[in-house]
Amino acid sequence: MTAARKRVVIVGGGFGGLACARALDGADVDVLLLDSRNYHLFTPLLYQVATALLDPSDIAYPFRTVFRRSRNVRFRQARVTGVDFDSRRLSVAGGDTIPYDDLVLATGSANAYFGNPELAERTIGMKALDEAMRLRNHALSCLERAAQIADPAERAEWLTFVIVGGGPTGVEYAGALAELLEMVLGRDFPELAPGSGRVVLVEGADRLLGAFHPRLGAYAADTLQGRGVEVRLSTLVREATEEAAVLSTGDRVGARTIVWCAGVGPIDPLPDKGSGGNGGGDAPVSRSRSKRLEVDGYLRLRPSPGGTGVSPGNVYAIGDVASVRQGEGELPMLSPPAMQEGRYVARAILDGGTPAHPFRYRDKGTMATIGRRAAVCQVGPLRLRGFLGWITWLVVHLYYLIGFRNRAVVLASWGWDYVRRDRPIRLIVRSRYDPVVASLVPEEPG
Amino acid sequence: MTAARKRVVIVGGGFGGLACARALDGADVDVLLLDSRNYHLFTPLLYQVATALLDPSDIAYPFRTVFRRSRNVRFRQARVTGVDFDSRRLSVAGGDTIPYDDLVLATGSANAYFGNPELAERTIGMKALDEAMRLRNHALSCLERAAQIADPAERAEWLTFVIVGGGPTGVEYAGALAELLEMVLGRDFPELAPGSGRVVLVEGADRLLGAFHPRLGAYAADTLQGRGVEVRLSTLVREATEEAAVLSTGDRVGARTIVWCAGVGPIDPLPDKGSGGNGGGDAPVSRSRSKRLEVDGYLRLRPSPGGTGVSPGNVYAIGDVASVRQGEGELPMLSPPAMQEGRYVARAILDGGTPAHPFRYRDKGTMATIGRRAAVCQVGPLRLRGFLGWITWLVVHLYYLIGFRNRAVVLASWGWDYVRRDRPIRLIVRSRYDPVVASLVPEEPG
Repeated sequence: MTAARKRVVIVGGGFGGLACARALDGADVDVLLLDSRNYHLFTPLLYQVATALLDPSDIAYPFRTVFRRSRNVRFRQARVTGVDFDSRRLSVAGGDTIPYDDLVLATGSANAYFGNPELAERTIGMKALDEAMRLRNHALSCLERAAQIADPAERAEWLTFVIVGGGPTGVEYAGALAELLEMVLGRDFPELAPGSGRVVLVEGADRLLGAFHPRLGAYAADTLQGRGVEVRLSTLVREATEEAAVLSTGDRVGARTIVWCAGVGPIDPLPDKGSGGNGGGDAPVSRSRSKRLEVDGYLRLRPSPGGTGVSPGNVYAIGDVASVRQGEGELPMLSPPAMQEGRYVARAILDGGTPAHPFRYRDKGTMATIGRRAAVCQVGPLRLRGFLGWITWLVVHLYYLIGFRNRAVVLASWGWDYVRRDRPIRLIVRSRYDPVVASLVPEEPG
Repeated sequence: MTAARKRVVIVGGGFGGLACARALDGADVDVLLLDSRNYHLFTPLLYQVATALLDPSDIAYPFRTVFRRSRNVRFRQARVTGVDFDSRRLSVAGGDTIPYDDLVLATGSANAYFGNPELAERTIGMKALDEAMRLRNHALSCLERAAQIADPAERAEWLTFVIVGGGPTGVEYAGALAELLEMVLGRDFPELAPGSGRVVLVEGADRLLGAFHPRLGAYAADTLQGRGVEVRLSTLVREATEEAAVLSTGDRVGARTIVWCAGVGPIDPLPDKGSGGNGGGDAPVSRSRSKRLEVDGYLRLRPSPGGTGVSPGNVYAIGDVASVRQGEGELPMLSPPAMQEGRYVARAILDGGTPAHPFRYRDKGTMATIGRRAAVCQVGPLRLRGFLGWITWLVVHLYYLIGFRNRAVVLASWGWDYVRRDRPIRLIVRSRYDPVVASLVPEEPG
């Protein structure tokens, strides 16, 4: 006679959800991991897919492969549409409901446009794999298009790339894109002059990499400028059109590509504010000003002031979707807090929901690469930059990449890029759905 | 004082067009290669992309990289919309016109459905890179879907794959798909029983691989059946619906996937029958019964009986789009004739359009793989099969793959597959446009 095992459902297999599932692998609970995609995505290298250095499969790993040998962790590809906290059931798209004893919400984040639908429409994001692929196809198509345009002003528009947001994603993409343009213009495109590509990085604050020490932000700006990137600080994009980005300075930058790296927001797993939770129109769960789900010191969901429906003992939120307060503010939307939170919640669940200590984040540092032989790393009081920072960045990212195959392929690709100065994967896989790709080849033959 | 160099325009960069452009590389002519895609595709390995063994970039190579060091070969991504033979100009989508002195039409082939729009709508083809990607996403999504279905009959539909056409493409895809299902069902999908996948290969003729010796076709059928593939000979697909394929035998095979490998037809580069060619409604160019462009013994376009517009000296057609007669029939739509024709035309152009001998195809053999350690090769009177055939197939395909990087990556992938019995690239990259992928995750969050 064994008691029925506890059933843990984890919603989302990003860094937080995956760390939680792995920490529960082999334990005496049944784990169901839900994700709307069938793979874990190593988002820190997404910009390398977008710049034709890596293939999608190099940075994505199917969940079923991760847990192939697990006896207690199962995966299901599904999108959660609501949670009934009282009956302890999730509903998923398609109509099924899934029971849980403990629930971990780890739905992550997606591009956020501060309520500006024009920006959402006219920019390309870089938060998901299909976005990175779209950006790659789009950018390569812009070069093919530019090669066919005689008018110098219009040609310059196709060769100009405006990147909005000077955080790690914007900085890394800007550096890699500048390198890509340097590699292919002139050499692969004899129609286009070397140096005719233009990358403009627009940041609202007065420095890049706001989460880093000011000196590292200044180093990043210097390095990017030395590689031909125009850095516009204290500047916003006021308007995005088909042919230009209009900046808050009044400047109009003619560009056919505007890349959105300026903000992400949580993906709220309770879109209908907890269907059946407390029955009323009132949201049963409180959210922070950043719209993340508020949690207590043990990462348990915090009911809204007037709410009654949530049992705080068995619903957790972690990662980008959770507002985890530490010191003066909430933890940033980065993978290290998400992974630590995931492991903490796994232990809490195995301890029966009563951990001895509240969650405490241990900052192991943060880093961003700026391109060939240049990166910034900040580990407590230690700050690395330049070549040493770059090597550190390489080692850490290889270490955290999942799976031997991915590591080997990525290492080989980096070596190829470094030695040959080449981006091998410059395919425009046709898509009828991207307007620029489609405009290049308006109608498919056959 | 140098005379203006001759301008050769090649339309299409498949095996024929690429061979022609390479043979003209370095010669005293200006070459412009046009293609609606920016890469050459090694179509013989497309089925390995469709079965999650290779990445798209492993079998595709950007034209600009191929001709990076060339001084006289240029590339332009464009789709040809018409040819004016009198003024010797091509028109391309977007409105531009391109002058030529010599023109090589090498537009290749695409899926053909014998005028049955239902088949075009309800089946997935495997002739282009995006089709192979769509097929991969679709097949993997079917497995995820099956894992969520309780009803055994409906579950079986999601796990059944009907392949229409028992030529090399159908045979190779059937073998690779059976291996994929054997590898992942049970192991990666504990919800699904090993052996619950079903592959049905439907062929209208009374044997597989009609272009090969009957004994090799019988060997292919035996081998596939030994690996669990149901082979239905002398059978046609009468009707394709959302849930089933209805066969000419009256059988209804419940299946959510029907793959079209049963026929390709030429992509006619003269869709408006030669705009401006002879001004009349009469087509200035004759076409064979198979709708390929008719050419004379020197591969020059043959004017239609009543036509007057085509100057036979400077317009060539090669590869799948050309009807090249040899012996009793026309050459098959395969890469070896296309490549030989491309090289012949390059020589003819350099010889000023007056080659000493008409084109003669030298049959160097043909081959198809059936899966792990099994293939058939036919080289003149020599017939190989089994392991020896498989090794021959491996070596020949690696040899013809373009570029060192692609060869190395493909070899590594094959080694991984062989040793680990694993298909690493099982990503469903979300697409709002494939109905099955979309139905799995009906609406995107965030």
